[in-house]
Amino acid sequence: MTENNRCVVLLSGGIDSAVAAAIARSQGFEIYALTVDYGQKHKFEIEAAKKIAKFLGAVKHRILQVPFGELAKSALTKSEIEVPKDRGELERVGDIPATYVPARNTIFLALAASWAESLDAGYIFVGFNVIDYSGYPDCRPEFVEAFEKVLAVGTKAGVDGKSIKIRAPLLMSKKSEIIKLGQNLGVDFSLTFSCYDPTPDGTPCGHCDSCLIRKRAFAEVGMDDPPLKK
Amino acid sequence: MTENNRCVVLLSGGIDSAVAAAIARSQGFEIYALTVDYGQKHKFEIEAAKKIAKFLGAVKHRILQVPFGELAKSALTKSEIEVPKDRGELERVGDIPATYVPARNTIFLALAASWAESLDAGYIFVGFNVIDYSGYPDCRPEFVEAFEKVLAVGTKAGVDGKSIKIRAPLLMSKKSEIIKLGQNLGVDFSLTFSCYDPTPDGTPCGHCDSCLIRKRAFAEVGMDDPPLKK
Repeated sequence: MTENNRCVVLLSGGIDSAVAAAIARSQGFEIYALTVDYGQKHKFEIEAAKKIAKFLGAVKHRILQVPFGELAKSALTKSEIEVPKDRGELERVGDIPATYVPARNTIFLALAASWAESLDAGYIFVGFNVIDYSGYPDCRPEFVEAFEKVLAVGTKAGVDGKSIKIRAPLLMSKKSEIIKLGQNLGVDFSLTFSCYDPTPDGTPCGHCDSCLIRKRAFAEVGMDDPPLKK
Repeated sequence: MTENNRCVVLLSGGIDSAVAAAIARSQGFEIYALTVDYGQKHKFEIEAAKKIAKFLGAVKHRILQVPFGELAKSALTKSEIEVPKDRGELERVGDIPATYVPARNTIFLALAASWAESLDAGYIFVGFNVIDYSGYPDCRPEFVEAFEKVLAVGTKAGVDGKSIKIRAPLLMSKKSEIIKLGQNLGVDFSLTFSCYDPTPDGTPCGHCDSCLIRKRAFAEVGMDDPPLKK
């Protein structure tokens, strides 16, 4: 194992990654936060990520411009593909929606791994979760496990017997549980941004899957979703 | 399987990926070439990749600016780390040298996968090889196999039963065999660029691992290494 307490955290600007980062901090890790600007329509999440990184005391926060949105066909990257709105809960089960971005989390983890290996950090923290999510295949336990295997055989760290591990502490949590956990860890949710399709001034649409899941989860825990701090 | 004959080829500008692309073409694939500008010292390889893509009749060639060299500690990305020179053959065996770039091929394959999935392409061609190489862990068969598993479980294509496959036709070839194969396929090696540490005007150093391996391989097949077309 490495002898430092560094970890790389993939920080999107949303609730899940903010809570994952707070968990890393609570476990004594130093946070090296990584946010990827890939050409997403919801660029406001990057501003949110900056505030969250600062709030959580990240040692560094890198925002990497990786314009793979030019290559990736998705409702989150292409203006000609609309973000689905007001989908019922049943529609969101067992379906991969148009907001899926091909290989996005594979790219994110690969970039995080490059930084982690360069920092001699032993862990990458992510906010992936498979419950109350949008049906993306790259948020599942089998994906995380397969990617860890890539790091074990495909990096110098792995060959040297100190393979980088992925910590996905929210993988099996419901969104409402994530909110409660974050609340206990002091996460300021007014810094987080979830909407896939905000108005030009950054107001959440309230109708995309991500807005709907957020709304329902706050209702479940009986909390008000605090207005976004701009 | 997909119904088109598209493939994404990771094209670095060197010999191996040029020959891998020529193999794809000879098998009837349409080439979508991807080159990553990651902040490498040897930027001349990108110019070489452009010429190779054109020479091989690529349908498209995308050069993606992905500045992960800022994060990745390597002799290929950091001016303060020198590219090793004149290492003997024995020094190059079983050792991972300073020119290893953390998680580079993982990042490259992830980006290629995003494009392949968006194109509905079934294959990614790469020039990785494990013989006569620089000892990088992310050029080995076990790495390719692990990454295919990531694509099987972490992409929509995989979930839909048309998982993207990685073709690494040179994985177990000696560099001299790769050159012979390329020659038979009509590859113009004067378009390729191998040096890790060229002079500012793009002249290969002749002393880095990559130059030494290239020089020896051309000598083995009894061919002159043609001067670089600029």
